[in-house]
Amino acid sequence: MSSSNTVPRSALQLRSLVRKSGQLEVSLAEVPVPEPGPNEVLVRVEASPVNPSDLGLLFSAADMSRAVASGTPERPVVTAPVAEGAMKSLAGRLDDSMPVGNEGAGVVVAAGASEAAQALLGRTVAMIGGAMYSQYRAVPVEQCLPLPEGATPADGASCFVNPLTALGMVETMRNEGHSALVHTAAASNLGQMLNRICIADGVKLVNIVRKPEQAALLRSIGATCVVDQSAPTFMSELTDALAATGATIAFDAIGGGRLAGQILSCMEAALNRNAKEYSRYGSATHKQVYLYGGLDTGPTEFVRNFGMAWGMGGWLLFPFLQKIGPARGQELRARVAAELKTTFASHYSQRLSMAEALKRENIAIYNRRATGEKLLLEPHRG
Amino acid sequence: MSSSNTVPRSALQLRSLVRKSGQLEVSLAEVPVPEPGPNEVLVRVEASPVNPSDLGLLFSAADMSRAVASGTPERPVVTAPVAEGAMKSLAGRLDDSMPVGNEGAGVVVAAGASEAAQALLGRTVAMIGGAMYSQYRAVPVEQCLPLPEGATPADGASCFVNPLTALGMVETMRNEGHSALVHTAAASNLGQMLNRICIADGVKLVNIVRKPEQAALLRSIGATCVVDQSAPTFMSELTDALAATGATIAFDAIGGGRLAGQILSCMEAALNRNAKEYSRYGSATHKQVYLYGGLDTGPTEFVRNFGMAWGMGGWLLFPFLQKIGPARGQELRARVAAELKTTFASHYSQRLSMAEALKRENIAIYNRRATGEKLLLEPHRG
Repeated sequence: MSSSNTVPRSALQLRSLVRKSGQLEVSLAEVPVPEPGPNEVLVRVEASPVNPSDLGLLFSAADMSRAVASGTPERPVVTAPVAEGAMKSLAGRLDDSMPVGNEGAGVVVAAGASEAAQALLGRTVAMIGGAMYSQYRAVPVEQCLPLPEGATPADGASCFVNPLTALGMVETMRNEGHSALVHTAAASNLGQMLNRICIADGVKLVNIVRKPEQAALLRSIGATCVVDQSAPTFMSELTDALAATGATIAFDAIGGGRLAGQILSCMEAALNRNAKEYSRYGSATHKQVYLYGGLDTGPTEFVRNFGMAWGMGGWLLFPFLQKIGPARGQELRARVAAELKTTFASHYSQRLSMAEALKRENIAIYNRRATGEKLLLEPHRG
Repeated sequence: MSSSNTVPRSALQLRSLVRKSGQLEVSLAEVPVPEPGPNEVLVRVEASPVNPSDLGLLFSAADMSRAVASGTPERPVVTAPVAEGAMKSLAGRLDDSMPVGNEGAGVVVAAGASEAAQALLGRTVAMIGGAMYSQYRAVPVEQCLPLPEGATPADGASCFVNPLTALGMVETMRNEGHSALVHTAAASNLGQMLNRICIADGVKLVNIVRKPEQAALLRSIGATCVVDQSAPTFMSELTDALAATGATIAFDAIGGGRLAGQILSCMEAALNRNAKEYSRYGSATHKQVYLYGGLDTGPTEFVRNFGMAWGMGGWLLFPFLQKIGPARGQELRARVAAELKTTFASHYSQRLSMAEALKRENIAIYNRRATGEKLLLEPHRG
């Protein structure tokens, strides 16, 4: 390998540990900086987003309102109790200190011997692959996306999860025979991206938001069909929107509560508006809601008033990418790189070092998962 | 056509009507006996079962505990109020007097000119196609299944819905890549059939029942894996059964409540017993529950503690038959005919004329949809 002589022997990595005793402990560990393998590159990680999917691993099922701080300013430790009922599902990770962070971006400071690895030396790249809340990360070349000229690590930090999820929704819609789609918690970074994709591709999108100001935000970026869950007329407005667009597939970030079922009910009502004759089994058109997130971690409840042609299920990026195969996956990544500063631009409300991110007052903000609040970690921030 | 001269010009047919005023009215109508078309046969209907799927059309969402009887002993009328909240989903059938009865069996008393129709003259046949609660019914030849020598109409009355549904479950299990299955309300006629199929075919089946005596009944017919929902150890016993069988698909007749979600939770727990490493997204094995019935018409509720690889959805016989195509459908029907008095035997707790079936005291029994209670209508019963 060839290596810049500024690379230290060890560096910081954020770790999440759930002890068998029922205690979560998040801390910074000093770990050896790895040597890249023949087809790997060593990246100095400059920026990594905290996505909802990261929060699940980071804080697990702990009650962060009861978090306790200890350690030093440079090496803080946060502990919090995990509810007893949640411990069973965590059996596989107990007493195992886990690195966190799905994606990030930085500069290649060392590379393995392969031609592909060497070609990336000095380049700014985005990466996927876990453990990104680290100052240095060695990753295989195929988990890197070289960023276009002029793009900073912050520009490319969220290159994979949100962009490929948004593209994956439109792709799933087409692959499963639907012609328009519904998205909930639609004013999120992801939701704004999805709007830009749908506008560019001429796909009809029904946006469901939780507040009037979120509806205004989406309309300001060109969304034409926005329905506010908090309005008393929500169900009838949603039915109108579904009838107008013909959307029969939805992607729901909320998960808990009644929303997923309400979407199916309104889809059925919209389909029945145009029905020629009564069927006791409801419309024969398949209606689908995929739960891809869990902003509401409570139980999911639905009233089965939408016939028999319906499905609900989990949706996850990695199985989707496996299903479409590497060639199509590469096409989607190429689009992300080409439209990085437009369609796939992300916005962050906070930029923090890893140590700052462990302060309780900061956790209280970014762990709310509120629309418009998104944290960018900068592992080398001073 | 050639016709027996004993066929009357008109005969009785059971009708279900929901008025715009919110009143259900079930009665017997005198309707003309149809002439069979060229490829149709006219069948004197001798026996027709009342399946749960028929009850949905027959009594709709009416409150039968408030039913009122009128009419004459020969031509009774039953009326009952429909809950206001349910009227919206009935918009397609309001003020439209509807015949009822998915399947039945009887003797061909007249036939159209086609060779296939003529070949059935005098034969005892099972039929599918609706409006079977009628004294006479004209149906296309392809909706008939000629019964084997010696089989009575009562033997063949339930030839389609339960047998093809039970076979369809095993077929769906195989087609969707699972190797064992779960069935709820498993002591039903359908459940007993499914056990006989699975024993014959060497398929592992987890039976979920609601009472100890139902477990005993299933064990007496050879079921090896039966779990009782009413036991305090239900969840752990179900998890054990799922781990032992490897079942990752379930067919649920209950629909409402928490059972469907509990099955997914236990499937996930069973899969995680053998997991090598922790995944925050849960097991990557897809877990599926199909809701094919609604014995509990209340809301469905689930806690999402089963990872992201899961699905819930409706399952219905007719779309399934369309999906497998006519050739495979014919193979399944041939099996039903060949094993009519063994694998696919049905048992009835009541046999009533259509007029008797409209008595409130009888409705109170068969509308409970209790395991072991099943009504066979005999439209010519004196």
